[in-house]
Amino acid sequence: MRVLVLGGDGFCGWPTSLYLSDRGHDITILDNLSRRKIDIELEVESLTPIRPVGERIRVWREVSGREIGFVSLDLATEYDRLVSLLEDLRPEAIVHFAEQRAAPYSMRNTPARRYTVDNNVRGTHNLLTALVATGIDTSLVHLGTMGVYGYGWSGSAPIPEGYLTVKVPTPDGEIEREILHPANPGSVYHMTKTLDQLMFAFYAKNDGLRITDLHQGIVWGTQTQQTIRDERLINRFDYDGDYGTVLNRFLMQAAIGHPLTVHGTGGQTRAFIHIRDTVRCIEIAVTNPPADRTRPRVLNQITETHRVLDLAKMVADIMGADIAYLPNPRQEADENDLAVRNDQFLALGLQPTTLSEGLLEEGKDVAGRYRDRVDPTKIICRSVWRSGMEKADDLLTELPVQ
Amino acid sequence: MRVLVLGGDGFCGWPTSLYLSDRGHDITILDNLSRRKIDIELEVESLTPIRPVGERIRVWREVSGREIGFVSLDLATEYDRLVSLLEDLRPEAIVHFAEQRAAPYSMRNTPARRYTVDNNVRGTHNLLTALVATGIDTSLVHLGTMGVYGYGWSGSAPIPEGYLTVKVPTPDGEIEREILHPANPGSVYHMTKTLDQLMFAFYAKNDGLRITDLHQGIVWGTQTQQTIRDERLINRFDYDGDYGTVLNRFLMQAAIGHPLTVHGTGGQTRAFIHIRDTVRCIEIAVTNPPADRTRPRVLNQITETHRVLDLAKMVADIMGADIAYLPNPRQEADENDLAVRNDQFLALGLQPTTLSEGLLEEGKDVAGRYRDRVDPTKIICRSVWRSGMEKADDLLTELPVQ
Repeated sequence: MRVLVLGGDGFCGWPTSLYLSDRGHDITILDNLSRRKIDIELEVESLTPIRPVGERIRVWREVSGREIGFVSLDLATEYDRLVSLLEDLRPEAIVHFAEQRAAPYSMRNTPARRYTVDNNVRGTHNLLTALVATGIDTSLVHLGTMGVYGYGWSGSAPIPEGYLTVKVPTPDGEIEREILHPANPGSVYHMTKTLDQLMFAFYAKNDGLRITDLHQGIVWGTQTQQTIRDERLINRFDYDGDYGTVLNRFLMQAAIGHPLTVHGTGGQTRAFIHIRDTVRCIEIAVTNPPADRTRPRVLNQITETHRVLDLAKMVADIMGADIAYLPNPRQEADENDLAVRNDQFLALGLQPTTLSEGLLEEGKDVAGRYRDRVDPTKIICRSVWRSGMEKADDLLTELPVQ
Repeated sequence: MRVLVLGGDGFCGWPTSLYLSDRGHDITILDNLSRRKIDIELEVESLTPIRPVGERIRVWREVSGREIGFVSLDLATEYDRLVSLLEDLRPEAIVHFAEQRAAPYSMRNTPARRYTVDNNVRGTHNLLTALVATGIDTSLVHLGTMGVYGYGWSGSAPIPEGYLTVKVPTPDGEIEREILHPANPGSVYHMTKTLDQLMFAFYAKNDGLRITDLHQGIVWGTQTQQTIRDERLINRFDYDGDYGTVLNRFLMQAAIGHPLTVHGTGGQTRAFIHIRDTVRCIEIAVTNPPADRTRPRVLNQITETHRVLDLAKMVADIMGADIAYLPNPRQEADENDLAVRNDQFLALGLQPTTLSEGLLEEGKDVAGRYRDRVDPTKIICRSVWRSGMEKADDLLTELPVQ
């Protein structure tokens, strides 16, 4: 299939592009390199030494014999170029990763809040209007987040896949209605994904667009079978307080002898997925477009749930590390239970890669190999949800000698 | 109270500014004159001869002895100037009308779809972030729309004010949850108001902002006790297919001898409010800020509901006019019932101005007085919800001699 990958240079976008290319799909990446530019703003770099996108694509051609196209384009502002690209390429599927994707960054300060909304909402809406304007019949696969549902809202009921059946009282008795699960976003970033959902619902209903919204859990892991073929294809690994995801941060911390940073009690339960399963899920979604054009299909893209403190203890036990309990910069419940339905991906053939000692060790190895690239002043999360909230000091000012 | 009126030069904003000024409040209008500029784009003008905003404010000073401030500012793009203004003014209340507000215009073409989203979402979000950044403790009153609820969704139950109590099944039995009423927007314009709702919910929860969202019905009428004091204060009256609201269009059509344009069967039931009640409701909302800072207060700003065909028949009977049944440019149900709760405004003292012969006559008089300003080629609505939908021809190519 001809697939356009929006945001195809990022943490999920790059390994997805390689995986789809490896599976025989014809890939074009669209990216404005925003993620790399935010690294410059934050004065931090991926722990792994990622190469320029042109070099990445060249090496992939050497290694695989396959071409990947690249277009430098800002989805939020370059509408006319987007339309030209769609008309030239006529993609059979579009994978949309092109959004600012870090919750802490979205709460960092006013420019970051505004960038997250302006970029994410306009990018998604430009894409939807461009599909209407060009009339291209494609299947749009969007990366959403489990965070649209919030945590603990539905009591002991597992979180359904997008839609919830509720009973509504009327003068003539209760009626049943299937609704989009109520939105309970925990950050400006998550909020933008709840706005995306409403735009998808409208453009499916009004214009018959075929849309799949993937509510993904927290991604961990770094390498896939494609990115590992050459060091110059390596995927990015964020360890900093804004962009690092919790389990990868623990692995990095264990690798350098830094205490594992648990925010609050660690009683938060979250859903997880390994990057290798992310790329498989995307292919499943791309190659199984929804039949229904009246409303978006929603799939929960997760494989397991864990309490953050349990993850910290597991990493600490296996790899030897202390745990530090730090003030929580987020406004969220101290503790929550979480059960999530993911029946649709399982039915479509996903075989989950679950947490295991081997996988954790592999993560630690990546972190260990590039430990000298760590800036210890970037580890603590200092983006707080409201001004005045407590921020932790650095726990290490320089890396311990190994 | 010191009140900042965003979009204070528009159809609802201008009479609201004058009413609040007349009631002794200290008013500053912020407006980028977008609505006047869209008139230029559409090659149409208000039926009533509205004066430049500077003249309006000068005349109001002559007539009332009261000053109204004016700031020309684009809420969606001039963030830093907005912050400076807020810090200088420190308003005790902000009324937010500054959004593109016509459903047909929002469906007109791609630039209009994009403008509606880019302007409305960024404007609202800039305002919210600016309130957080400046820490100004103000009460924000936003003009939403009844269209966020959709029509016919809740069976025989009246539409509640913002929040709906539903029952959710769990393994431990049903639990009750109060949710924001599910969003069922009928156009890109209405969609932006559903996005606003989610942004308000987040910024109330996270930052404790005090927000009132007014879900307003279709406004009819033109003049208030303030705009009528001098012809140069006259309010705008839109009669064209994009911006004209249904009842005002019928009044204009009756006044010039044009058949009343009913789209589809006319079986659509909608909620209405007279412009005189709009301005009263705004003052009630401004002077009664919500106590709750954890979630927005939602009030339904409507006074009555009517079936469109019944309105057409009423106007036709009283004023003598034919009815023309035209293809419906909207994707909507042919017919719906509608009951709406508006208990909160009634409890806060609103005394509804309901449809009556006198009011209709007054509307017809306004239209009759300025009938020579009508461009008959602008009457038919030609913005369709999907390309390829049927568009009606002009019913009149020139005004009938009176």
